[in-house]
Amino acid sequence: MPRPEETPQPPSARTGLRVAVLGATGLVGREMTRLLEESRIPVAELLPLASARRADRTVRFRGEDVPVRAVSADAFQGVDLVLASAGGSVSREWLPVAAAAGAVCVDNTSAFRMDDGVPLVVPEVNAAALDGIRPGSGRGAIIANPNCSTIQLVVALEPLRRAFGIERVVVSTYQSISGAGRGAVDEFRAATTTIMDAGDDGAEVKRESPAFDVLARIGDIEDDGVTTEERKMVLETPKIMGADVPVDVTCVRVPVFTGHAESVWVETTGPVSVEDARRVMAAFPGITVTDATDVPRPRDVAGDTDVHVGRFRDARTARHGVQFWVVADNLLKGAAWNAIQIAERLADAATPAAAGV
Amino acid sequence: MPRPEETPQPPSARTGLRVAVLGATGLVGREMTRLLEESRIPVAELLPLASARRADRTVRFRGEDVPVRAVSADAFQGVDLVLASAGGSVSREWLPVAAAAGAVCVDNTSAFRMDDGVPLVVPEVNAAALDGIRPGSGRGAIIANPNCSTIQLVVALEPLRRAFGIERVVVSTYQSISGAGRGAVDEFRAATTTIMDAGDDGAEVKRESPAFDVLARIGDIEDDGVTTEERKMVLETPKIMGADVPVDVTCVRVPVFTGHAESVWVETTGPVSVEDARRVMAAFPGITVTDATDVPRPRDVAGDTDVHVGRFRDARTARHGVQFWVVADNLLKGAAWNAIQIAERLADAATPAAAGV
Repeated sequence: MPRPEETPQPPSARTGLRVAVLGATGLVGREMTRLLEESRIPVAELLPLASARRADRTVRFRGEDVPVRAVSADAFQGVDLVLASAGGSVSREWLPVAAAAGAVCVDNTSAFRMDDGVPLVVPEVNAAALDGIRPGSGRGAIIANPNCSTIQLVVALEPLRRAFGIERVVVSTYQSISGAGRGAVDEFRAATTTIMDAGDDGAEVKRESPAFDVLARIGDIEDDGVTTEERKMVLETPKIMGADVPVDVTCVRVPVFTGHAESVWVETTGPVSVEDARRVMAAFPGITVTDATDVPRPRDVAGDTDVHVGRFRDARTARHGVQFWVVADNLLKGAAWNAIQIAERLADAATPAAAGV
Repeated sequence: MPRPEETPQPPSARTGLRVAVLGATGLVGREMTRLLEESRIPVAELLPLASARRADRTVRFRGEDVPVRAVSADAFQGVDLVLASAGGSVSREWLPVAAAAGAVCVDNTSAFRMDDGVPLVVPEVNAAALDGIRPGSGRGAIIANPNCSTIQLVVALEPLRRAFGIERVVVSTYQSISGAGRGAVDEFRAATTTIMDAGDDGAEVKRESPAFDVLARIGDIEDDGVTTEERKMVLETPKIMGADVPVDVTCVRVPVFTGHAESVWVETTGPVSVEDARRVMAAFPGITVTDATDVPRPRDVAGDTDVHVGRFRDARTARHGVQFWVVADNLLKGAAWNAIQIAERLADAATPAAAGV
């Protein structure tokens, strides 16, 4: 669906899509831009968007410094695809505008995830939820990218659900600092240095800094004691998996830069052995299964797009069940890469000839 | 039970006990010695023992530098009480010798924990297992101090078991570096500095350093995929609680200096509300229950002898159950303090008049 352009474009690009990245200067925005370059999405033009105070920056794309523009209603005119990761309030304000202007929006925030009619998608699990949505068609839409910890959980659970059924899941997370954004990473780095220099006792560090500590609170604690982060995992998991998958979860921030880990206990409907679980996971797309003694670690997995699963054990307190350990890069599969995977499928529908798969 | 002494002793000490600390120069040994000073144990004489290569050191006790002696069979002659924390092989070699010489030994290693006839004791839970054992009686004995993560778990579980019954428990741990000893702490500190200085990518750090990482392996991985650390928690919990308490657990090392945390999910036999769970735990000795929005943190709890419990939530995937978050100082309640509590009870039996409680 070529569009008239003012500047000359190479032939392959002329048949492509105009793609806006909202929140282009953030941790996830930068990863999305980098992955866009390597993706099979035919990008005719990249439009980096951000808040007005960041609009003096540039973003590197295909060897050029592309100026960041301030987000506005006009900015979405003629845009086919929007990748958004600038915070929930920004998405709530601008994605309905973009969709009304005909853009298909992939939103990395929690703003629309639980809305009826908004697909919540992990391509390995429920790509079919994207059917009928076509960037460049002029019919706008909003698609939600799930919570980072939810994404790696459902990828690991889906092959088990298909093969054995799932009765219930108990999860504890080990979530890295980069999941809280660039400001949190800077603060963590400073607090770590302060404690290393001054010793733990004398250090003047924010009371709840994750430096050399673990914090069993991410987001706000609601009336029933559950945090907003935990609620996301409880509610998003069944929506993505299209099944009643009861989840009890404790979300914990740990002093790791990048890479989320999860300890997962699953009671299955039917009998399952450790070997069964390894087999169905190894055959599932997007999962790397490690051998029995090789334990996936966040610092090692960071930079990789797969979900890594290891430490398979019998869940001996369950009638049928397994336990395992899941690690993924929260900025990649937990955010940018999942959004790009969604965008690639949408682009395949928009420009079938350009599809690499 | 006074003993003849060669050097003059103050009257209160003359009625007291000769106490040996085996592994006096280690992280836990030092804490035990410090806590001995403050305890109600009537210490007539302190005998710090260590391996021959550490026998040139001294240990501070009651304002004096007490020389560390090399452990030998002779060292236990006339000793009433031994507090041991010098590693499993040292305990296996020397505690039978000490017990044969008439000493009552409280062993912080895993050497004898699962042996029939060796009480495995957390005083809040099963102090009665100490009945009939009396230091100074000339009848030696070995008593085992449980695994650090097990201790804080059973303290939190016992009030629930008594009030509601327990069907099964799913636990994930967040264990600090000091649990692996002084060498591990030094290595962790060096690796942290290296990564802070060089950046994550360029840092030459041991592949499995816990610096800015989480390691889901403590101890060795056995044939069924369970680690030796996880096995300890599974086996020790029912022995201490004197009941069939099935536990599934994942043990994880986190980059925290001191303080272990645990995410705990419990299915109870009878109905239980969050308020019920808070109430029975708050009434139990040795537990500090935090209010709904105050989350216990290792860096904050370090230095305190209590087990801190917070983040109470309904276990909604269980018929009846609760979830909560447990934090304790692994060197204190998880090791030295629990040993001193055991020793205090033994001392009360030995010298009833001196008992503070």
